[in-house]
Amino acid sequence: MRPRIVLFGDSLTEQSFRSGGWGAALADTYTRKADVVNRGYGGYNTRWALFLLHHLFPLDSTKPAAAATVFFGANDAAILGRTSERQYVPLEEYKENLRKIVFHLKECCPTMLVVLITPPPVDEAGRKEYAQSVYGEKAVKLPERTNEVTRLYAEQCIELAKELGLRSVDLWSKMQETEGWQRKLLSDGLHLTSEGNAVVHQEVVRVFNEAWLSAAEMPYDFPHHSEIDGKNPEKAFQHQCL
Amino acid sequence: MRPRIVLFGDSLTEQSFRSGGWGAALADTYTRKADVVNRGYGGYNTRWALFLLHHLFPLDSTKPAAAATVFFGANDAAILGRTSERQYVPLEEYKENLRKIVFHLKECCPTMLVVLITPPPVDEAGRKEYAQSVYGEKAVKLPERTNEVTRLYAEQCIELAKELGLRSVDLWSKMQETEGWQRKLLSDGLHLTSEGNAVVHQEVVRVFNEAWLSAAEMPYDFPHHSEIDGKNPEKAFQHQCL
Repeated sequence: MRPRIVLFGDSLTEQSFRSGGWGAALADTYTRKADVVNRGYGGYNTRWALFLLHHLFPLDSTKPAAAATVFFGANDAAILGRTSERQYVPLEEYKENLRKIVFHLKECCPTMLVVLITPPPVDEAGRKEYAQSVYGEKAVKLPERTNEVTRLYAEQCIELAKELGLRSVDLWSKMQETEGWQRKLLSDGLHLTSEGNAVVHQEVVRVFNEAWLSAAEMPYDFPHHSEIDGKNPEKAFQHQCL
Repeated sequence: MRPRIVLFGDSLTEQSFRSGGWGAALADTYTRKADVVNRGYGGYNTRWALFLLHHLFPLDSTKPAAAATVFFGANDAAILGRTSERQYVPLEEYKENLRKIVFHLKECCPTMLVVLITPPPVDEAGRKEYAQSVYGEKAVKLPERTNEVTRLYAEQCIELAKELGLRSVDLWSKMQETEGWQRKLLSDGLHLTSEGNAVVHQEVVRVFNEAWLSAAEMPYDFPHHSEIDGKNPEKAFQHQCL
């Protein structure tokens, strides 16, 4: 009965129900109003995400999602010839893959609220420290992701949203407005701290509110307990349940 | 495609996706393996919960939940003649209502893993402080819930689980094993702190693991990114997606 909000993305989505995570916070914001479903796939880029589309969002679904966040690019922006090149997707293909994802979602349900989220900024020093903590001496010197390359992907994401008339969150820019974003909002130069998660949550809620998906304006799925008469509970439930 | 775990209960379930909440933690435990769905209704007792049964768990569902937690009693145990008496349900009726809930879930799906959770213990001093902070001088002197009355409800819950051969979590007893549980595990004498939420999460995971719903033994719903060949991604997806 409740509408579904599907979070489609990479590890930044997959990890979003960890303590302080933006997915869990979103589920809490929409308590008794919508279900928030995690479809995050750590390490995935948009090329690999395409394989999942028909399975996660079947065209013949009788109850398609009411809204979806599409949050890819952090892996697509891995740099060719460096340690994470397996995940690299060329810039133009990234944009086209995102377009295919959006078209598929809109084919599932033309009224689906689709929100594109850019990858967050990259803190190269944080990435280097993380690589050294994992690989020690063997850690490769050249960064596998840079903030400047990720910027290009973020720009394509925003440009596509404009072309298609979709709402978007420019997380790459937004996070860099915070002084000390490198350590404050990112835990390893790429993934989100609790404060970084709070930024994503706040931005997604803002965009949902600007669209038609404001939790404050959505009905509770059943009566608030204060509306139930202890001696005559049937009355409160008669419209919805009897 | 993923199995669903439905959390059915009162505010202790409804609030379970707040920061540090046991529902969000459970969703994280089952990341990429099962969806955790919140069906918590703050203030509800088992009598009112019965009105929702057919709506939340339709008998003709083609994809019934794989598992459900049933976590009621904190409101049923409100004391007659005191401020929360509207929520009071007699002890015998509480047990019979729980039985009806279980029978309905098993009618939906005989293999559904149903786990009964007792209400947590009540810290009367904490409840009193909370009432004074909200109502000031007007706060009623006599507690609207007591730990001893809640114990009776917890016992009925455990007894029913034994009668029906169901798994259960005796939260009332478990939480009181912790020194200083009154302040450590409860925020207002009734609701859970982060540490209290951690106890519920740990106990539910333990019981799920003892049954057949161990996250460690469940398959990922799509290949882990490390199994995907960057040059030939089709291969990793051919079984599930092509």
